[in-house]
Amino acid sequence: MTLHVHKYGGTSVGTADKIQNVAKKLVKEKASTGNDLVVVVSAMSGETNRMTELAKTMQASPSAKQMDVLLSTGEQVTIALLCMALEELGQAAVSYTGGQVKIVTDDAHSKARIEDIHTNNIQADLAKGRIVVVAGFQGVTAAGAITTLGRGGSDTTAVALAAALKADECRIYTDVDGVYTTDPRVEPKARRLDKITFEEMLEMASLGSKILQIRSVEFAGKYNVPLRVLSTFIDGEGTLITYEDEGMEKALISGIAFNRDEAKVTLGGVPDMPGVASAILKPISAANIEIDMIVQNIAEDKTTDFTFTVHRNDYDKTMRILQEICEQLDADRVTGDDKIVKVSIVGVGMRSHAGIASQMFSALADEGINIRMISTSEIKISVVVDEKYMELAVRTLHESFGLSGE
Amino acid sequence: MTLHVHKYGGTSVGTADKIQNVAKKLVKEKASTGNDLVVVVSAMSGETNRMTELAKTMQASPSAKQMDVLLSTGEQVTIALLCMALEELGQAAVSYTGGQVKIVTDDAHSKARIEDIHTNNIQADLAKGRIVVVAGFQGVTAAGAITTLGRGGSDTTAVALAAALKADECRIYTDVDGVYTTDPRVEPKARRLDKITFEEMLEMASLGSKILQIRSVEFAGKYNVPLRVLSTFIDGEGTLITYEDEGMEKALISGIAFNRDEAKVTLGGVPDMPGVASAILKPISAANIEIDMIVQNIAEDKTTDFTFTVHRNDYDKTMRILQEICEQLDADRVTGDDKIVKVSIVGVGMRSHAGIASQMFSALADEGINIRMISTSEIKISVVVDEKYMELAVRTLHESFGLSGE
Repeated sequence: MTLHVHKYGGTSVGTADKIQNVAKKLVKEKASTGNDLVVVVSAMSGETNRMTELAKTMQASPSAKQMDVLLSTGEQVTIALLCMALEELGQAAVSYTGGQVKIVTDDAHSKARIEDIHTNNIQADLAKGRIVVVAGFQGVTAAGAITTLGRGGSDTTAVALAAALKADECRIYTDVDGVYTTDPRVEPKARRLDKITFEEMLEMASLGSKILQIRSVEFAGKYNVPLRVLSTFIDGEGTLITYEDEGMEKALISGIAFNRDEAKVTLGGVPDMPGVASAILKPISAANIEIDMIVQNIAEDKTTDFTFTVHRNDYDKTMRILQEICEQLDADRVTGDDKIVKVSIVGVGMRSHAGIASQMFSALADEGINIRMISTSEIKISVVVDEKYMELAVRTLHESFGLSGE
Repeated sequence: MTLHVHKYGGTSVGTADKIQNVAKKLVKEKASTGNDLVVVVSAMSGETNRMTELAKTMQASPSAKQMDVLLSTGEQVTIALLCMALEELGQAAVSYTGGQVKIVTDDAHSKARIEDIHTNNIQADLAKGRIVVVAGFQGVTAAGAITTLGRGGSDTTAVALAAALKADECRIYTDVDGVYTTDPRVEPKARRLDKITFEEMLEMASLGSKILQIRSVEFAGKYNVPLRVLSTFIDGEGTLITYEDEGMEKALISGIAFNRDEAKVTLGGVPDMPGVASAILKPISAANIEIDMIVQNIAEDKTTDFTFTVHRNDYDKTMRILQEICEQLDADRVTGDDKIVKVSIVGVGMRSHAGIASQMFSALADEGINIRMISTSEIKISVVVDEKYMELAVRTLHESFGLSGE
């Protein structure tokens, strides 16, 4: 018997009508495929914010433990309503909270990690032909306390359930119809990918394609759960996220990612000696500033330039801290720029293809786009360019690597 | 160590401000008495209706099972918010859903009965000085399904917890400051009772003093849990509901109850033979009409008059059914009156005092109030009078039995 786990997020179950729409889709799917179906749902959109506001009127910073008790009611409402909608259509259904499943987590409230999932009851319900509806985002500690998995946790619930139940596919239904070669709002020629590898998806996600939570992609990769992203509202095949295989498109580059929120800072003329990098980064990290790219060139004249990027919101704070470090280390100068963006090309194909980087740089050069920083990984090359060039850079690379549809 | 169980209903926790008010009361109470405190709360007022409406958009008649999953979120929200408010005041607190306690019930969804309560975890929390906050109205079956106890179920939760924990007192906080000798809107001289027995409270409650759910009073009586009704908003001692004891006020009559919703019907000239009463009542009961008082006088001339009261809404339906029965039984006539009320005096004191009934009847006669029916029980005497005399009858009896203040 084929088993699919579906996940519907807050916007897919945001109103009574939308929940009924999901119920109809599920009944149709079950009738046409005969698949066993486990459905993970989020809280109706807006509910989590409503409850968070309510909590804030009680306590300036409510305990994570009580926030979990409060917020977990959101998905519990949805599972009940979806089961009602399914029953109204004559489809037997059964609801489970995280605690009822049991989805056992550690006790890190508000960002708990799943440790174990009991599947016996769900399997018994599936065997009886019931659609099993599970509250996403939540679990329970071994001691019985309610926990939540943190933002986007419903994706993680779906993937973890799929892994535990050895499901044939985990389908994440959302408001986009798949993963695109780049953001269609920047490049209208962007094309939906039929397939993408877990590694590529991780690079795309962390670079700003916020369709899936990184954690759930990691989890799916680790347990080899085929993951499919598709639209709740438009019929289609979506994008399958899986391991590289024979049938995979042999594209060198799968997509162009970008990030508008970056700022770049440089400490120039730093004495080139061991321990300098750590001396620079320690105070930054102590101030809870996250660092993205780091670039350090080889030394000239016994000094070097040390450059890194931070979130644009942290730019001023970072510059202040760097001024202090500059004096302590007897460096020359602090410079920075918060009008930059990062543009990256991602693809497993580049591993075996040395020419990719030069193709990228010359495509940008042909358009007169100056590259301010470069950073590479196994399946990704990122460049930092002036903000004003972002759209041009994305479209140029999209065209250069043949990603545009017809 | 003294242990009190408190219960706050929907209007007492209806807004963020009110929840904070309850938290302040609890912290003050704990500081001044040092008592261990277990607090049972309802859903914020309005929430249950909001969710019921939502359910109706899903399914014409939603299953009781899914309604329980849905509605139980209401109290779960309140326990989290109240714990936050307590923690904000520096008071350690811990929240429990019904399933977390475990309050084990049968599987009669929407009207489940409590079978067992696990108290170990709560006792451990109390020993650590924590205020324990429990979601009312809900439980869990042995198999792990979420159940609710039905309307007013939070009172039952509080009393059952008090019994299981052997609490010294169970306090029901509500929007009235106690049980009154009669409804102050009818008799402004009505007086709050300091004490009342369980039996009297049952008679008062079933006669329309809807402060407490009958089931929770029965439960408190059965397990001998002293029950106190008091106001969330006004300081005061409220009314203690307990067993008759030495310290009890020696009043003959504790209160005057009344019911405006009655109608009276009579089948006259019924052949006086065995099986007649049953032949009359069976079709009434088959039509789901509830019967309150029944009166049949001794027979004269081999026929008798058979009279009973029903809810006023069922009057027309009852008259139609009686017409048919009249023909079948060859009775003389059907008469009825839907402009009547029932007025009752209640008090354990009347058990040993034969003069009560005559005092009641002559007091009413002195005011020219004609008694249309009489019915008595161990601690209650009820009379049916014309609707227009209701207020006069209540005030007359209130005065006659010395219930007025001063």
